[in-house]
Amino acid sequence: MVIYVVTTGGTIEKVYSEQTGEVTNLDSKIDRYLRLLRLPDTDVKIVPLMNIDSLRMTDSDRARVLETVEGLLKEKAPILITHGTDTMVETGLYLDRALTKPEAPIVFTGAMAPLGFEGSDALQNLTESLLALRLLAPGIYIVSHNQVFPITNVRKDKTLGRFVKIEEKSG
Amino acid sequence: MVIYVVTTGGTIEKVYSEQTGEVTNLDSKIDRYLRLLRLPDTDVKIVPLMNIDSLRMTDSDRARVLETVEGLLKEKAPILITHGTDTMVETGLYLDRALTKPEAPIVFTGAMAPLGFEGSDALQNLTESLLALRLLAPGIYIVSHNQVFPITNVRKDKTLGRFVKIEEKSG
Amino acid sequence: MVIYVVTTGGTIEKVYSEQTGEVTNLDSKIDRYLRLLRLPDTDVKIVPLMNIDSLRMTDSDRARVLETVEGLLKEKAPILITHGTDTMVETGLYLDRALTKPEAPIVFTGAMAPLGFEGSDALQNLTESLLALRLLAPGIYIVSHNQVFPITNVRKDKTLGRFVKIEEKSG
Amino acid sequence: MVIYVVTTGGTIEKVYSEQTGEVTNLDSKIDRYLRLLRLPDTDVKIVPLMNIDSLRMTDSDRARVLETVEGLLKEKAPILITHGTDTMVETGLYLDRALTKPEAPIVFTGAMAPLGFEGSDALQNLTESLLALRLLAPGIYIVSHNQVFPITNVRKDKTLGRFVKIEEKSG
Repeated sequence: MVIYVVTTGGTIEKVYSEQTGEVTNLDSKIDRYLRLLRLPDTDVKIVPLMNIDSLRMTDSDRARVLETVEGLLKEKAPILITHGTDTMVETGLYLDRALTKPEAPIVFTGAMAPLGFEGSDALQNLTESLLALRLLAPGIYIVSHNQVFPITNVRKDKTLGRFVKIEEKSG
Repeated sequence: MVIYVVTTGGTIEKVYSEQTGEVTNLDSKIDRYLRLLRLPDTDVKIVPLMNIDSLRMTDSDRARVLETVEGLLKEKAPILITHGTDTMVETGLYLDRALTKPEAPIVFTGAMAPLGFEGSDALQNLTESLLALRLLAPGIYIVSHNQVFPITNVRKDKTLGRFVKIEEKSG
Repeated sequence: MVIYVVTTGGTIEKVYSEQTGEVTNLDSKIDRYLRLLRLPDTDVKIVPLMNIDSLRMTDSDRARVLETVEGLLKEKAPILITHGTDTMVETGLYLDRALTKPEAPIVFTGAMAPLGFEGSDALQNLTESLLALRLLAPGIYIVSHNQVFPITNVRKDKTLGRFVKIEEKSG
Repeated sequence: MVIYVVTTGGTIEKVYSEQTGEVTNLDSKIDRYLRLLRLPDTDVKIVPLMNIDSLRMTDSDRARVLETVEGLLKEKAPILITHGTDTMVETGLYLDRALTKPEAPIVFTGAMAPLGFEGSDALQNLTESLLALRLLAPGIYIVSHNQVFPITNVRKDKTLGRFVKIEEKSG
């Protein structure tokens, strides 16, 4: 089974720069970590779209994400979009408004700490998302920390450092 | 949400003995690795039942697994059973015959290499299984390597080192 | 044998903040990583002195390092000082000027990437430094990347991202 | 600086076989782990000699080790020999009897748990040994767990799971 992974950057892909001491979006590294997983029946096709902090994502960037997703949906294959958590909901809702009836599940995921950093949630979220794409009905979701949220009922709780349902009390 | 994790041993929990140089089932270590995951909305309750190589599992052991599962099913919480891969299908079918209509999903998982060994699939399988229990309908399944198999349509392919659908060609 | 580890911060101890996305000196973590090493005959005593970026280290901070080292030298036990690499040489020379004849080896080490980050050199440098303290004659040194430098013949090469002898060509 | 690494097998290089569930000497993996270290000024040359459990090492095998070491000593480069811990002392003394005055340091190291297994001491011992070869006078040593033992004053304490000086009380 084919699964598309559209990468847009965000914390999940950030790297530590030994020159500057900063953590930034430089090189895509999703593929390197996906190789740590055993996916014998899953044909992962990575589509590296952009590599930016999601706070810098513009409507023009979101239009590119939409255009890419629309193209891939023609194949009815599930789509994973890796994305910064800060504006993940915004991009998800942008797609939700434009795609009236997607014919495959679309999952957004990201991370609070980059792939390969101690205590990171990034590989967990990738692993969960790939499995979720096997089981979810068509629609747009966020998958993270062993939770699945339909895109219309989720927000990031900055204090808790995770996603919660819209109606949940703030952390 | 509560998820029960019934541990029975198998490769996933094996440890390397520095005294003997062998890899055996000595101490439960599922809990130590589950702590590496972020599970803010999941209340994992571990039920350490036995810690044996699944090739040594007897019908009396399987009866204990069944009895435990029957007890937990009363709470209608999803159940993860960690188990050796060699007789996982056998135990799954044993449960399938006895439980006519389970009211929650029951997922079996295990690993080809123990938790904490280089290149191990164990944490991946645990992560996937916990997510699958969020989404699956009541029934008995094996979850491994980004695949979900209903228990009545799965066998272990020893050559490939993984589970496959019954009808699939041998590796 | 007793070895003192005086921690002053620097990249080696930096942590990733999920709130700010920055890498900063917040909590000491040397002890957590030293516990990964087997040190049956080494009694490591950690002295957490400060936790700052070495570019912010003042002469007053260096005076505190010196005072601490002078106190510990009375026991003639080897001393490891973990320190940011940017001004490690400066602090080392400061000690060198003040300590006319130390009666034990004093080793400075640090890292280009923090402990626990993918590809980090931090645990390697700690491991090497503890071993070096077993073998070195009294004096002040930098140990890093399988090299031992007397403090009077070493500089950081920013381009190469490592220490080199003073006479070596720039990277 | 050139350092030769002569690999002979032992626990340090053992791998877990997913087919048999056993831990055995199959493929050399020292090189893969040495690549995790930063060794800018060290030219490591690996000499894969054999890959066996040291309990199976015969006098004929020891003669091959000796012959190899004699050849390398002509270059006066330090030599690291990775070796099973059970008969490491025996092989070391074999070399000690034959080499009247080696002109470079020769360090034996190994591990209680294989490279890449949780809690392994293997990478620590490799890191320490490479640094020790920088500092030690010509002679034959065992380096392990932050200790350096001249070959004529060391034995393995099976109960403690480590090397100790000959005169030390048993664990």
